[in-house]
Amino acid sequence: MGRSIKDMIADMRSGDQRSLARMITAVENRTQGWVDIMKAVYPLAGSACVMGITGSPGAGKSTLTNRIAKDLVEAGMKVGIIAVDPSSPFTGGALLGDRLRMRDICTLDHVFIRSMATRGVLGGLCQAARDVTRILDASGKDVVLIETVGVGQDEIEVVRASDFVVLVTFPGQGDGIQVIKAGTMEIADLFVVNKADRDGADELLSEICAMLELSCSVRGEIPGVVKTSCITSEGIDDLMKLIYGFVARKRKEPGPAGEHVREEILDLMEREIFRTVRKSFLNNDALARGIDRIVKGKTDPYSVSFELIQAFLMQDEDISRGGTRHG
Amino acid sequence: MGRSIKDMIADMRSGDQRSLARMITAVENRTQGWVDIMKAVYPLAGSACVMGITGSPGAGKSTLTNRIAKDLVEAGMKVGIIAVDPSSPFTGGALLGDRLRMRDICTLDHVFIRSMATRGVLGGLCQAARDVTRILDASGKDVVLIETVGVGQDEIEVVRASDFVVLVTFPGQGDGIQVIKAGTMEIADLFVVNKADRDGADELLSEICAMLELSCSVRGEIPGVVKTSCITSEGIDDLMKLIYGFVARKRKEPGPAGEHVREEILDLMEREIFRTVRKSFLNNDALARGIDRIVKGKTDPYSVSFELIQAFLMQDEDISRGGTRHG
Repeated sequence: MGRSIKDMIADMRSGDQRSLARMITAVENRTQGWVDIMKAVYPLAGSACVMGITGSPGAGKSTLTNRIAKDLVEAGMKVGIIAVDPSSPFTGGALLGDRLRMRDICTLDHVFIRSMATRGVLGGLCQAARDVTRILDASGKDVVLIETVGVGQDEIEVVRASDFVVLVTFPGQGDGIQVIKAGTMEIADLFVVNKADRDGADELLSEICAMLELSCSVRGEIPGVVKTSCITSEGIDDLMKLIYGFVARKRKEPGPAGEHVREEILDLMEREIFRTVRKSFLNNDALARGIDRIVKGKTDPYSVSFELIQAFLMQDEDISRGGTRHG
Repeated sequence: MGRSIKDMIADMRSGDQRSLARMITAVENRTQGWVDIMKAVYPLAGSACVMGITGSPGAGKSTLTNRIAKDLVEAGMKVGIIAVDPSSPFTGGALLGDRLRMRDICTLDHVFIRSMATRGVLGGLCQAARDVTRILDASGKDVVLIETVGVGQDEIEVVRASDFVVLVTFPGQGDGIQVIKAGTMEIADLFVVNKADRDGADELLSEICAMLELSCSVRGEIPGVVKTSCITSEGIDDLMKLIYGFVARKRKEPGPAGEHVREEILDLMEREIFRTVRKSFLNNDALARGIDRIVKGKTDPYSVSFELIQAFLMQDEDISRGGTRHG
């Protein structure tokens, strides 16, 4: 398979979208050989500027991402978009609204859009985003935009893994900055007050500026603040100026952030061990018997799971007691 | 420890809030003996009505939860509240707003409030919510309200584990029902259009009703829809009538839902194995050497993690290739 991975990577780097899509799918689905793909992709990645675009539902993230991508392409850059979709746990799909709005940039050359479900991602959402970002990076994209709802824990982890974070807010939610409390505030490099054509935009802008005077970003820099409207185009030029600044900074300091390496290794290990566990318990009699006994009220999920773990790990250590030894 | 767990449970069931809090803390922190606590608690749980209250940031969930809890207590019930807080990954805490608003019910007897961080929960967010819900249930609460932001994947899982789901929406976000797409729509038993004193409440109500005619809840029933305002008290009586209906239904059909047992066992196993992995790699030389080699550009996280997994599992199976055997 080594030779064919080399071929696919060469095709992908010469601009073949199908090879790119096929490699992403193989890695996302953890198809046999996915590790070899990622091992080959890894050294080629590290130069793209990875930008997380996050905010509450309804903030206009998709429209703004669309607009940013268009401007970047007009400036001669290649853009990858990863849309992390809070897909329905039951239908497996999101409402069509967002996807439809993205339609006009789908037809642009130099833009590759990939949607990612938040549920059932085999390698875990954060690792899947890391993997796909690397593939897009290695394929020659200058910028990778990751659009995600900035509330859930997994989603925040995804955003934390980007080089820069754009937090999109909007007026009219009544509670002002209370709505952007969800752990995203501290990781934002740029605050956008979107839908500036609406009432309350200036108040929200003032609130954010006041808040920023009281705090300080993790990176030790005061984040930018800009007011935009995709309807009137107000502030879009200012926004793009800041974004080109991020791209320029990444070009000066390429390479992956070293701080996340440890976390990524542990993530990869956990997921792979978990996949092994799930696989070995797919048609497991002991599990089926355990479920049956629980449903009949004879035991509980805690007892059953610890019995199964012990059998799985075949270790002397009594992990059910938090690591104390037993005879 | 068996005897003292029995004592603590007896104290908790006679209304001692400190024993209740202490048991929750022990289980959340996975303190030695936590499994014994849960094994003892499990058979005592199953009669409380567990209600998930979810919705976008700014929807007024805390205020509404507050109001519902007060009314339930006035009707003679004991209430537990679990507030799943999207806490900041950097400061470890949420803004004070929500907590302050809950203040007036903290002083009520028969209400026990527990805040839960979404980050760094040792047993995983969903399992932590299951555990704490069971303890509250076993302590004699009639109703457990779980308030959570309904967007992230983990948060949705928490809500899915409840008996009934109340989805709180509010007018003024401009995009109408687009903002409630996040996988929560299909699991809602009751839609609340909150902040009905604002413009646009009737339009949102109509949109939701129109949408419900096109779909159907997972439980095969058409969810209720109610318009409320905590300022004018409009619709609160209607809301409470529906909620008392849920409580009555749960009383008729007590016991845990069997469908989630398998998922819970796998969750418990997964988390315990993660904990074992993390613990054994806390001061691991091979991991430190691997990180060093990655930072120096000599290898990649994929290669390192699979080397470490092989050493950890000490198995013949080559899991790095998706389960194919090697020499």
